[in-house]
Amino acid sequence: MSKPYVVGIDIGGTNTVFGIVDARGVVIASSSIKTLKHSDVNAYLDELYNEVTRLLVANDAVDKVHGIGIGAPNANYYTGMIEKLVNIPWPTPLPLAQMVSDKFGIPVAITNDANAAAIGEMTYGAARGLKDFIMITLGTGVGSGIVINGQLVYGHDGFAGELGHTIMKRNNGRLCGCGRTGCLEAYCSASGVARTAREFLEIRTEPSALRTIPIEAITSKDVYDAAVAGDKLANEIFEYTGNILGEAFAEFTVFSSPQAIILFGGLAKSGELLLRPLRESMEKNMYPAFKGKVQILLSELKDADAAVLGASALGWEAKAQVPAVPQA
Amino acid sequence: MSKPYVVGIDIGGTNTVFGIVDARGVVIASSSIKTLKHSDVNAYLDELYNEVTRLLVANDAVDKVHGIGIGAPNANYYTGMIEKLVNIPWPTPLPLAQMVSDKFGIPVAITNDANAAAIGEMTYGAARGLKDFIMITLGTGVGSGIVINGQLVYGHDGFAGELGHTIMKRNNGRLCGCGRTGCLEAYCSASGVARTAREFLEIRTEPSALRTIPIEAITSKDVYDAAVAGDKLANEIFEYTGNILGEAFAEFTVFSSPQAIILFGGLAKSGELLLRPLRESMEKNMYPAFKGKVQILLSELKDADAAVLGASALGWEAKAQVPAVPQA
Repeated sequence: MSKPYVVGIDIGGTNTVFGIVDARGVVIASSSIKTLKHSDVNAYLDELYNEVTRLLVANDAVDKVHGIGIGAPNANYYTGMIEKLVNIPWPTPLPLAQMVSDKFGIPVAITNDANAAAIGEMTYGAARGLKDFIMITLGTGVGSGIVINGQLVYGHDGFAGELGHTIMKRNNGRLCGCGRTGCLEAYCSASGVARTAREFLEIRTEPSALRTIPIEAITSKDVYDAAVAGDKLANEIFEYTGNILGEAFAEFTVFSSPQAIILFGGLAKSGELLLRPLRESMEKNMYPAFKGKVQILLSELKDADAAVLGASALGWEAKAQVPAVPQA
Repeated sequence: MSKPYVVGIDIGGTNTVFGIVDARGVVIASSSIKTLKHSDVNAYLDELYNEVTRLLVANDAVDKVHGIGIGAPNANYYTGMIEKLVNIPWPTPLPLAQMVSDKFGIPVAITNDANAAAIGEMTYGAARGLKDFIMITLGTGVGSGIVINGQLVYGHDGFAGELGHTIMKRNNGRLCGCGRTGCLEAYCSASGVARTAREFLEIRTEPSALRTIPIEAITSKDVYDAAVAGDKLANEIFEYTGNILGEAFAEFTVFSSPQAIILFGGLAKSGELLLRPLRESMEKNMYPAFKGKVQILLSELKDADAAVLGASALGWEAKAQVPAVPQA
């Protein structure tokens, strides 16, 4: 009998969420553990194994799992390694796919979280039936997963698709976490919107509801709330953000000519506040041959399930327990 | 018996070059006709058919042709159509693949010239064995062909890979032929280099050998000759050009993480004059995870053969006489 389930595991800085998913994308059951409870990665893997196994037993799914898919920061699909960890104290490079596969005796595939989101969207969400699209995650940072001709783009080293680090301001750009200046992420992430708010409030003199909040404490949520309540400056912050995002999307289009760009993440829920200036700017900046061709879509995956679904979809691809050797 | 040859046809604004090519990439024989001799496309196709047939007969290759590959401006791989023609008076959209296929009774595949160059390089040139690379043609314009995971990127509409229209100067950029401002092509094509020379000569005061040439008549070849002869301003023009090209290549890398970027076309022959500042700028502007990973290579196809070889390589892919229907 073929195995009807996959397990999706999303390793975040705070929580590791996991679930059992069937072939139609139904999350049969899910649970989570605290990623940082164990500073030792083997102790973490022991707990993960015990909790996933408990879930499998409770759902009569033991020996029915085709593969395990994992979304994790800086995870390399080709090597199965996590190359770098920022807030998690495990040693890197970490052969995570091999370690999990050894533990469970099940094939494992890993990739980064934005790629997992793209695979999830293609398998179960807004990108069903699309062969050429780009997934943009607007969260603390700006992540991306690129699909061309139905295949995720990994690049020769497994790290392609860092579109959050497209340079949008080549002169006098903001310092980005990557050490360069002017990256998209420094403007159009949740933290970028908060930075824009601080800049606007310092440079401009209009009254704004945002001035009642201590300037260093302002979040993108505060800006959203103020904009919805009609605050003019807050609306202009969304205008500014959407404008840069639209410029970026026009750039992405000359590369891969996608049918759609799909938005996911907290900031994507700003609705027309963000989408209207985004669409206008994208069309205004678009290379003529592509005008009117690219749809902006919102993710159709439920928040609570998205991370697990995205990772689990990769589980269907998991084949060998020894990951493929990358191109030299 | 399987058919051992392909025919490559490169349709340029001035000449249409064609040749018979074997599986090892040897151009058995080649010839050309004047593209613009016939303002009527059917008369043009008659002459093309007669001349190609004459070549096939002379080389005992009749009935031994697997397919015909055509490189042509704005040719769409999916639809087999030429969507737009600038200096050629034939009606568009023109169903070129179907027309040539009907004429010869042989499967035909078409694509644009930069994509054909990429396929040629992958099949016979510097990209043999590479699965992820970008071909950049530095000619009158800047063209590109992108290969990801061994496949040419066509995008959902067949027009992906317009990297010459990446925006490099978002403020005060030069007007580009596409109607927008600041495109890579406006700076790093042969005509872009000539524009840079005119700007430098007008704005700066240093002596330069270039000042002996009427300013509107200066070509990129003049700038090259002056730079090689030690002219300081001419050297700075190459520095400026290489710098922008390096910034652009760093941008391309965050998208597809290629193993190599391969240069083709007249300006690519400038050697270290262009390559040194290009490499330095690319590394300086590179997203940290990709530093030191991307090779800059020069095309290994001989000029005289490159266009025909590139187009011919597509001939091996030609299958149906009715082109595939594109994704909606």
